[in-house]
Amino acid sequence: MGNVTIKDIARICGVGVSTVSRAMNNHPDINQETKDMIMQAIEQNNYVPNNSARNLKRTDAKAIAVLVKGISNPLFNRMIKVIEQITQKEKYELVLQHVDDNQDEVTVAIELEKEKRLRGIVFLGGYFSHSEEKLKQISIPFVLSTIKLEEKDGRQEYASISVDDIKESERIVEYLLQNGHRKIAVIGSRKDDESIGWLRLQGYRRALERYHVAVDEELICYVPGNLATYSMEAGYEMTDQLLKKGTAFTALFAMSDRMAVGACKAILDHGGSIPDQYSVVGFDGMDVAQYYNPSITTIRQPVEEMAEATIRMLLELIRKKNKSRHLVFEGQLIEGQSVRNITE
Amino acid sequence: MGNVTIKDIARICGVGVSTVSRAMNNHPDINQETKDMIMQAIEQNNYVPNNSARNLKRTDAKAIAVLVKGISNPLFNRMIKVIEQITQKEKYELVLQHVDDNQDEVTVAIELEKEKRLRGIVFLGGYFSHSEEKLKQISIPFVLSTIKLEEKDGRQEYASISVDDIKESERIVEYLLQNGHRKIAVIGSRKDDESIGWLRLQGYRRALERYHVAVDEELICYVPGNLATYSMEAGYEMTDQLLKKGTAFTALFAMSDRMAVGACKAILDHGGSIPDQYSVVGFDGMDVAQYYNPSITTIRQPVEEMAEATIRMLLELIRKKNKSRHLVFEGQLIEGQSVRNITE
Repeated sequence: MGNVTIKDIARICGVGVSTVSRAMNNHPDINQETKDMIMQAIEQNNYVPNNSARNLKRTDAKAIAVLVKGISNPLFNRMIKVIEQITQKEKYELVLQHVDDNQDEVTVAIELEKEKRLRGIVFLGGYFSHSEEKLKQISIPFVLSTIKLEEKDGRQEYASISVDDIKESERIVEYLLQNGHRKIAVIGSRKDDESIGWLRLQGYRRALERYHVAVDEELICYVPGNLATYSMEAGYEMTDQLLKKGTAFTALFAMSDRMAVGACKAILDHGGSIPDQYSVVGFDGMDVAQYYNPSITTIRQPVEEMAEATIRMLLELIRKKNKSRHLVFEGQLIEGQSVRNITE
Repeated sequence: MGNVTIKDIARICGVGVSTVSRAMNNHPDINQETKDMIMQAIEQNNYVPNNSARNLKRTDAKAIAVLVKGISNPLFNRMIKVIEQITQKEKYELVLQHVDDNQDEVTVAIELEKEKRLRGIVFLGGYFSHSEEKLKQISIPFVLSTIKLEEKDGRQEYASISVDDIKESERIVEYLLQNGHRKIAVIGSRKDDESIGWLRLQGYRRALERYHVAVDEELICYVPGNLATYSMEAGYEMTDQLLKKGTAFTALFAMSDRMAVGACKAILDHGGSIPDQYSVVGFDGMDVAQYYNPSITTIRQPVEEMAEATIRMLLELIRKKNKSRHLVFEGQLIEGQSVRNITE
């Protein structure tokens, strides 16, 4: 059968075209049996609705763009899945666009905005330290997700959804301090990071300060440009270097679970044991932290809830039902098998 | 500064509009210093090209769609990255569309094809057992990637890029057999899988057959509908059940590295040791196999090369420079620390 039309389906089912149309559009005024029969015929005959009314609607379709920075972050996959489900329900098309590490996401957004159907933008991840001047060039609503822009004077001009990276990082480092650790190595992001990596490093510094432990810059590892940030490889290489240098430490805080996995492997390859000789903690709450051997203590970010809040906030902004707000989600410390209390 | 125009940039730099245009378009007929100055002014003034010629070109843009089945597969992220780079170079726009497990990707494709700009489609992953009748409704070129459609009479109507899942699976099971294992458990996909999972199970059966080992159906674990296929959780739960039942086995083949990680964790949680008591192998060649403790023996799929071949093949089909072909890539057995020779 070539190109099946709505008339063919109506003929096959012995009903009128309008009944087929009602079945497809979930119209309440049709009985379930008839509807099931029609839907089955549609499926069996591979009928794809293609009438002009639908095409008209299509050209008219509203779209939302999600700009994803850092495609290799599996957390984002889980978030995109949630965003897709909600946009679909709300009858928006979704434009997914990945942004390279060396691309500027705001420039990409300004370019994308020219797409006539675009009603709003989600920025997912990225190094968010853009000038307000540049952000002002985006004239449709947008939400920053898993990132936050520090605004002068405490204004809240830009909508954002995130955890409090400083506080959560402080929490997990404090957990290490409570377990008696004082020489705590940290594997962060790039040295010039002004985003997540910088915030998490502030949390590290604050926790040490509160415990009157001097910060030893030797224990702070930045990931060089030849290694992907937050990757297992980066965690491995940085820890390997630290151990080769012979720098003394009893605990290590990796700013992502993937880096924590690499760090554990480097320690094990050097003949070290976890947590007997070295305690290791991560950040994010990915499944690999749970299933690693040993399982890795981490901060779980509630990414599904954050994704839902992101798209709901954007829809409210599009419908002018709300003003820009900063929503901060609470992380959760998940205890694994990777930390030892060295005072016991 | 409000909306910056090309005239503003020309004025700021003290050059003509055509010079700015040449700088932006990488025209050879402009000296490097002038070009640098112009590009700097563009950057500093947040100028975004917005002239009508460019807009015209935009409406006219050609696009390629990538339909991704199984968003949580990190291998696909690496492949999309490669596909993005090449399409960008070749001046195609990329439409990324995720397909839910319960959505039919061919229906999604037929719907997408109505987008006027679409020149070709890549199907990435999925359970590919579609009727040819339905596939014939797609009238633009498409390539199946990491999947292959078994065609009757050995015809090659559909372009595809994949590894030989039967052969590679046979290879890794044979490796276990060579190491003396006879009771080899396998963690696969859904029981009714007609795609990758089915092919890899064929490879398992063939290897046993070649070594005259009877297949014990008790050792074949299918993942039930409440667990995500190929996930760490599925690997954990299936192995946990196997161990609780007391089924005897000395080795386990998980059809993905992520399931192998879950399997290892379940064995360890049951007090078992790897590889002393249980040998474990995976499939895919992901970084988690390399960094797990112990590192996991696996089959590496050359996904970056496969991604490049996918998009190149599609471009050739679009330009009518070639016919549909099946390209089969060779996997590579990567030895980890997770297999013991039990004959020694």
